[in-house]
Amino acid sequence: MYLIVVGLGGIGRSLAGIASENGHSVVVIDRDEERCADILAQYDLLAIAGNATDKAVLEDAGIDRADALVATTSDDALNLMACWLAKRYNVRTLVSIVNQKEHAELFKEVGVRISENPDEIVARSLYVWAENPETQLLASIEGGSIFEVTIRDGAEGVNKTVRETSDVKDMLYIAIRRGGKLIIPSGNVTFQPNDVVTVFTKKESEGRSVEYMDSLFH
Amino acid sequence: MYLIVVGLGGIGRSLAGIASENGHSVVVIDRDEERCADILAQYDLLAIAGNATDKAVLEDAGIDRADALVATTSDDALNLMACWLAKRYNVRTLVSIVNQKEHAELFKEVGVRISENPDEIVARSLYVWAENPETQLLASIEGGSIFEVTIRDGAEGVNKTVRETSDVKDMLYIAIRRGGKLIIPSGNVTFQPNDVVTVFTKKESEGRSVEYMDSLFH
Amino acid sequence: MYLIVVGLGGIGRSLAGIASENGHSVVVIDRDEERCADILAQYDLLAIAGNATDKAVLEDAGIDRADALVATTSDDALNLMACWLAKRYNVRTLVSIVNQKEHAELFKEVGVRISENPDEIVARSLYVWAENPETQLLASIEGGSIFEVTIRDGAEGVNKTVRETSDVKDMLYIAIRRGGKLIIPSGNVTFQPNDVVTVFTKKESEGRSVEYMDSLFH
Amino acid sequence: MYLIVVGLGGIGRSLAGIASENGHSVVVIDRDEERCADILAQYDLLAIAGNATDKAVLEDAGIDRADALVATTSDDALNLMACWLAKRYNVRTLVSIVNQKEHAELFKEVGVRISENPDEIVARSLYVWAENPETQLLASIEGGSIFEVTIRDGAEGVNKTVRETSDVKDMLYIAIRRGGKLIIPSGNVTFQPNDVVTVFTKKESEGRSVEYMDSLFH
Amino acid sequence: MYLIVVGLGGIGRSLAGIASENGHSVVVIDRDEERCADILAQYDLLAIAGNATDKAVLEDAGIDRADALVATTSDDALNLMACWLAKRYNVRTLVSIVNQKEHAELFKEVGVRISENPDEIVARSLYVWAENPETQLLASIEGGSIFEVTIRDGAEGVNKTVRETSDVKDMLYIAIRRGGKLIIPSGNVTFQPNDVVTVFTKKESEGRSVEYMDSLFH
Amino acid sequence: MYLIVVGLGGIGRSLAGIASENGHSVVVIDRDEERCADILAQYDLLAIAGNATDKAVLEDAGIDRADALVATTSDDALNLMACWLAKRYNVRTLVSIVNQKEHAELFKEVGVRISENPDEIVARSLYVWAENPETQLLASIEGGSIFEVTIRDGAEGVNKTVRETSDVKDMLYIAIRRGGKLIIPSGNVTFQPNDVVTVFTKKESEGRSVEYMDSLFH
Amino acid sequence: MYLIVVGLGGIGRSLAGIASENGHSVVVIDRDEERCADILAQYDLLAIAGNATDKAVLEDAGIDRADALVATTSDDALNLMACWLAKRYNVRTLVSIVNQKEHAELFKEVGVRISENPDEIVARSLYVWAENPETQLLASIEGGSIFEVTIRDGAEGVNKTVRETSDVKDMLYIAIRRGGKLIIPSGNVTFQPNDVVTVFTKKESEGRSVEYMDSLFH
Amino acid sequence: MYLIVVGLGGIGRSLAGIASENGHSVVVIDRDEERCADILAQYDLLAIAGNATDKAVLEDAGIDRADALVATTSDDALNLMACWLAKRYNVRTLVSIVNQKEHAELFKEVGVRISENPDEIVARSLYVWAENPETQLLASIEGGSIFEVTIRDGAEGVNKTVRETSDVKDMLYIAIRRGGKLIIPSGNVTFQPNDVVTVFTKKESEGRSVEYMDSLFH
Repeated sequence: MYLIVVGLGGIGRSLAGIASENGHSVVVIDRDEERCADILAQYDLLAIAGNATDKAVLEDAGIDRADALVATTSDDALNLMACWLAKRYNVRTLVSIVNQKEHAELFKEVGVRISENPDEIVARSLYVWAENPETQLLASIEGGSIFEVTIRDGAEGVNKTVRETSDVKDMLYIAIRRGGKLIIPSGNVTFQPNDVVTVFTKKESEGRSVEYMDSLFH
Repeated sequence: MYLIVVGLGGIGRSLAGIASENGHSVVVIDRDEERCADILAQYDLLAIAGNATDKAVLEDAGIDRADALVATTSDDALNLMACWLAKRYNVRTLVSIVNQKEHAELFKEVGVRISENPDEIVARSLYVWAENPETQLLASIEGGSIFEVTIRDGAEGVNKTVRETSDVKDMLYIAIRRGGKLIIPSGNVTFQPNDVVTVFTKKESEGRSVEYMDSLFH
Repeated sequence: MYLIVVGLGGIGRSLAGIASENGHSVVVIDRDEERCADILAQYDLLAIAGNATDKAVLEDAGIDRADALVATTSDDALNLMACWLAKRYNVRTLVSIVNQKEHAELFKEVGVRISENPDEIVARSLYVWAENPETQLLASIEGGSIFEVTIRDGAEGVNKTVRETSDVKDMLYIAIRRGGKLIIPSGNVTFQPNDVVTVFTKKESEGRSVEYMDSLFH
Repeated sequence: MYLIVVGLGGIGRSLAGIASENGHSVVVIDRDEERCADILAQYDLLAIAGNATDKAVLEDAGIDRADALVATTSDDALNLMACWLAKRYNVRTLVSIVNQKEHAELFKEVGVRISENPDEIVARSLYVWAENPETQLLASIEGGSIFEVTIRDGAEGVNKTVRETSDVKDMLYIAIRRGGKLIIPSGNVTFQPNDVVTVFTKKESEGRSVEYMDSLFH
Repeated sequence: MYLIVVGLGGIGRSLAGIASENGHSVVVIDRDEERCADILAQYDLLAIAGNATDKAVLEDAGIDRADALVATTSDDALNLMACWLAKRYNVRTLVSIVNQKEHAELFKEVGVRISENPDEIVARSLYVWAENPETQLLASIEGGSIFEVTIRDGAEGVNKTVRETSDVKDMLYIAIRRGGKLIIPSGNVTFQPNDVVTVFTKKESEGRSVEYMDSLFH
Repeated sequence: MYLIVVGLGGIGRSLAGIASENGHSVVVIDRDEERCADILAQYDLLAIAGNATDKAVLEDAGIDRADALVATTSDDALNLMACWLAKRYNVRTLVSIVNQKEHAELFKEVGVRISENPDEIVARSLYVWAENPETQLLASIEGGSIFEVTIRDGAEGVNKTVRETSDVKDMLYIAIRRGGKLIIPSGNVTFQPNDVVTVFTKKESEGRSVEYMDSLFH
Repeated sequence: MYLIVVGLGGIGRSLAGIASENGHSVVVIDRDEERCADILAQYDLLAIAGNATDKAVLEDAGIDRADALVATTSDDALNLMACWLAKRYNVRTLVSIVNQKEHAELFKEVGVRISENPDEIVARSLYVWAENPETQLLASIEGGSIFEVTIRDGAEGVNKTVRETSDVKDMLYIAIRRGGKLIIPSGNVTFQPNDVVTVFTKKESEGRSVEYMDSLFH
Repeated sequence: MYLIVVGLGGIGRSLAGIASENGHSVVVIDRDEERCADILAQYDLLAIAGNATDKAVLEDAGIDRADALVATTSDDALNLMACWLAKRYNVRTLVSIVNQKEHAELFKEVGVRISENPDEIVARSLYVWAENPETQLLASIEGGSIFEVTIRDGAEGVNKTVRETSDVKDMLYIAIRRGGKLIIPSGNVTFQPNDVVTVFTKKESEGRSVEYMDSLFH
């Protein structure tokens, strides 16, 4: 894959590193020369110091043969315009961070896959954790959430089977991690202390589900 | 809950906002006075401009009656020391961002729940997306991954039931989103164009699973 | 007219001043607080320090009842997004500076009236002047140019009529300025020393026209 | 032509580029070393980092053999002094931006051709446009203005001839742009939808003219 | 006297202080607000933060009723334009520092009294002193110099009269300072140890004069 | 002479230039590397970026073989210490600018020749000039002042001899400048229009002298 | 005591705090306004933002009735001059940090008590510690050093008396700290594990003493 | 010894210099590149610009073969984490500055030898000196203090023996410095004018001891 990464903040840097280590051709664009120099010293990729909405910069970056462009800056206007220009060069895959919820619609109109405010995603997960130290929010999708919960020694659910503890509607066990191994939770698997259980629950039943797990595993 | 948030970068700001809007007592600590002034203008909380490792600052923040402290700065040393000091004040729940993987062990020794480098998490998800525009990585756990895939019109899996398409080992349908509704994928549900399917797969079968979904839904 | 001006550089400041002095309701948006304070001290308008792509800022600016939004910053991405958001609020008239020629198409797609790089327009006019001190380029349109030329005392064209000097194809006298008065150049008007003559010429005949005027008036 | 450009703001940069691309010998002077380095990387010219009122700098720039000096900075005092010193070296053509109307007289006394505040010119044109989205002010001269108007489909003037619509005194059709072609508006040319018409009008009849065009073409 | 001082560097500050303490009406203009605030706290005068070539600023400063304007900035272009504008308001006395010798002519053409580069004047005096620690250069005029020399105890000239030591052509004793008193050097005054003698000498005889004083007084 | 100059402000730069052009060995010391680089590009001398109170810096500058050290910074404490350290290295001649009158005593105690605040000297001269445009203060010594006055055409003193106009006590003609020539004012020289007359007057008679010259020459 | 502290770096701040908490009248002088504001918020003292070599500043600080002035800045020239000026106001006690060893003599000549470079003192103590983790250098005087050593459990010296272990010449036990109590080491006191022993040794015997303690206590 | 120094402030620089001059292998780590370049120019050691909590930086610094790490920054959190990481690499000796007393416990838990706030130590010593100009506090230990006092000529204690003046309980003479020689104060040594006496006293008797010495030696 020939990938153009716009922006070398924390996310852009990580992305460029991952893609480059996986053997893809990576070009990064950032206004800051120092950031460009830094990443060049670390990875085997191309770095261009310039404005990603500048035609000359995009062409230097090989926009006409790129398979994907991912915009990761904290400036939605820049992300949007860079994606739009890339589209005119027939870049097949366009992905962008969207920093303000309200801008999501514009990106969709241009045909960009968006990842909403990453800071908010992390914050939401920390929030759940601060409230329920044993329960971690792994991901939110429209209509549902995926949690992870660690079973306390002596909890009520210990030694019970998956089947016995599946009473709650709209809740689903996804996986159980036990001492480095991962178990698909078929009905007669029994829960053990220190198991880390991954659970899916519908949004409307989230409160009830968290409560149930609390009573069962803590 | 009485919550202390250390650091007012993107994550800290979001977290403080969420917690405050959920009716909790929130105190934020950041070295930058302007950031403190900004958040005070937005939310109903307490903001202290100072160093979160400074005893006087922590006491001003009410550390002795706090239920939780979440450290969100990009400086692991500061996060670690703030958590450790909070522990000596018997703050029950300690959560921290860990910016460098190698520091995780120190946080665990102090008894802090950690969330590893959030930038890397987001970058990894964007990377998967850039590679497979129709497949989004929602979350990674030890030993497994959770993906989301959108069904193309005319794909092979359309009108097939969940049961018919469950041949692949170590893969599990978690949920189906269809026009704003969320369906728990029991065996005889049939897939429709534009359904967004959430799937769990073990790490060791991840390649095979993604391939299978690709053949089925794109 | 209820007018929102985005950006308080030289152009934005002038525009805000003109509109405000003509009795319109003007709101200006600029990221720089000092600039906002400065213009507030000078004109009777509203100034908001913030990002013009921020929904809350636009609403504070009264975007829902604005008749027109003019984007004047040197950042095309910001200009584009501000106009696009304004369009979603049904602002009837959208005008923007476009700093890079290559971006013009995107603005047109959104339905924005554009004024191409103003610096370049001025530079082009200075260039003509440096080359022909007596001939000033007033404006360029697609396919043609409008010039101004001052008649030297003793030049060949003095005392000739407009009709006698209209041999050159694709050239048209627009106006003659003489001692503070403006004369519409009907056929039998005669040219006088120090007259300032405004002339239109097609692009393809520009060279020939300038040469002709040179021989006639200098 | 041997041209010295003082100042590398937007206008100076554009001017240097145009002149250099037209094969002239160009020397630019700006206090900022970075700006000088930037333009050297782009065009084939000479750039000197220094103060354009410094004799040594002017001599390094070849002032004694220059044909023209154009001052483009936002500092009128600097523009004025640079032009005046150039005059003492017998530079034939002196042109300058004048940022404050009140300074125009001083420049004229020294014998400098001036272009009044370019920001204001652009702002005035945007202002007209914001008021009448279909009518663009192209240029203002003493006593008259040149406008451009686009003919709406179904407007009253469609299919009428130039002669039929020339009732208004002190107004003159200059050109008609139709699908990439430029037509000189002789009497029996008929107006078509989407034609862009360039019109001259005397200042004292400007209101009436704009009104007339509005009724005719919108 | 109603005096406007342009620039609040070391010289401008001193000048404003002296004039204000002598009971004159003083207005100072400097771009820096802090400098304006500082001097307002010290003296009874008016201070305006702004550009002294800005008509509005000059009028705020009362340029139309000023008796004198003294320009003291290190920017000759600014000094020149401020003086020239003041002249148009009929300010009778115009004085300016000239930082670069080569600019002196322009100031004279405008009718400004000039004081050439003050740093150079001081440097020249220090230079003489470093060379001849007992001889200080007080002032240079066209064609001549004024020195001060201290008589060493035991020097050859001690107890000689002014007349006896007046052999050198083009040299003139101006004054003798003795223990706080000042003596006009009539012919039969005798020199005493520690007398400080002020001497005038023509430029062409300067070397010989300094040598002579050296042999006489050191 | 081997000369060390401390400080590269306006005065230090001038001094270094003068001494270097007169063939002396010059070393300059300034904290700012850029200033050092600038002067190296201009003159043939040695420049050291460092603190002039630092023993290693002074020794690099060759303090042990220097004939003179002149301190020209605006920081009296630095000037004083640099001179004092130089004295311990037996530098024969020590000269310093003294920025605050109150510090003069300390310098004298160390044995440093001082030049009091140069800004104030220039300001005082400008002040006299602003008051009496035709009379310039050239220098002040304890107990007396040296002025320069230009004779207006038609003034009362024109064609009078020096002797006829020497009535005023404590006043002395020093020199007359006439068309580029310098005349020693012996008794029967007659004054001519446009002569520039240099005059000495005792402080206590200054008012009367200036008045007298005014009546005579203006 | 009426104390003036010059400089609000780490040392100055601490000193001002200690003196103020002990009930003395304290005035601090520092150039930085923010530092002054900070310390005012913490202690009951007077803070003046200004240059401590400025006569007006010193008088505002009450120099004429001060008992002591302590200069703590990192600029020796400033420290020296401030002390010297204070001496002229008859301040009885003058103390100063001296940052460069070579400047010590000048301070002594003025009659200032000096404390040589504090950073070096601390560094030397850390250095000893890094070399001998159980032995800490407490202080150095001319000709001798004071160390502290902790007795390891099972060391040879445990249960021996002071008298038995006093064989080494030029070494002296000063004190023994045991569980919060301090014991004067008379001859028949016995050493216990974890005792912290303070020892004096002459410089010339330092090696032998440290060796001896090492064999005895580790 | 292979020593890693973290931080290149005053203390770190001094420490690195001392250790390097004593022939040890020294590596310094500081975030600031300029500081690193400066020390490299002065000493024969290795300097790494980076964050000392970064695993890669520590490994570049050779943490796996270091004998000691000394943390000297003003940021306790950084000092603590650097020490802790070093411990995991089995660095035997860990020493750190602790800037805030309250953090001391955390360092001790990790097993780090600490030196409490060095600024406060120096400040305390200056404070004693300002109060008693003849008495200098050399060091404080838990429960006791070490002072130095200079004997005034004519003081009461002159010519008395050590034994005669040892009445005060909890006070001990440690050493006497006389003209460059150091004397161990055995009982029959007599005090002489200008002797510098080093004295130990218990904290609870400090007031009485200082008073006694005052009466005896001043």
